[in-house]
Amino acid sequence: MRAALDAAAAAAAEGEVPVGAAVVFGGEIIATAANAPRGLHDPTAHAEMLAIRRAAEAIGDDRLSDCDLWVTLEPCAMCAGAIAHARIARLYYGASDPKGGAVEHGPMLFAQPTVHHRPEVYGGIGESEAAGLLRDFFLSRR
Amino acid sequence: MRAALDAAAAAAAEGEVPVGAAVVFGGEIIATAANAPRGLHDPTAHAEMLAIRRAAEAIGDDRLSDCDLWVTLEPCAMCAGAIAHARIARLYYGASDPKGGAVEHGPMLFAQPTVHHRPEVYGGIGESEAAGLLRDFFLSRR
Repeated sequence: MRAALDAAAAAAAEGEVPVGAAVVFGGEIIATAANAPRGLHDPTAHAEMLAIRRAAEAIGDDRLSDCDLWVTLEPCAMCAGAIAHARIARLYYGASDPKGGAVEHGPMLFAQPTVHHRPEVYGGIGESEAAGLLRDFFLSRR
Repeated sequence: MRAALDAAAAAAAEGEVPVGAAVVFGGEIIATAANAPRGLHDPTAHAEMLAIRRAAEAIGDDRLSDCDLWVTLEPCAMCAGAIAHARIARLYYGASDPKGGAVEHGPMLFAQPTVHHRPEVYGGIGESEAAGLLRDFFLSRR
């Protein structure tokens, strides 16, 4: 989660909503990413999406069955869907997101009967630092 | 929808599940894409995602507020989430997807109270050809 939090701080420095992610395989970080939809002109460029895409490219497979994803914020529906498609084994996330989250809020995607893969889910990891980055970012933008 | 159906047929020729998409802006097609997760080693590389990313790159903005998305299959949760993030104005799709769809099935994403954008939605456009491509593909793989 340290790598994900550092990526979140880097996103803030670029004027992006501070969310960061990392993919771990065999005890090693194989991909990290900072949220970057504005900078990349890409509405799909959430930290989780970029980290999953980089990890899949590194492994050379569209499935990350033995990989874990660490992300500083509860994933949205798009990212939760990508996590299911990628067959991520374990999801660790930091802050909860009552507005945009789709794991413990809103559509609660992994609880849907039609979801084709459910990772193990662990929330609240590094939550205070992850939430603090987001709070500071939005306060500075007012 | 003709361009999306042609992209779906191209996906099948590459051994990918035949789904195609196109983004229209100002009456012109600005991006088309064929489903390509296997070939690209990218679990996020659904036709809708690739078409949205290409359109956003073409426009130079992460929002596609005045764009319409045409896709041959009901979008999944990942793609429906991306459609909301991209602020797509109108969504036209072909075949329904009771197993993986997230528009009229499963999480019914655009009906969720927490969704931050709801496109106008029109299903069943070119449905028989879109469904036929999928049926032929899966029959040939048995």
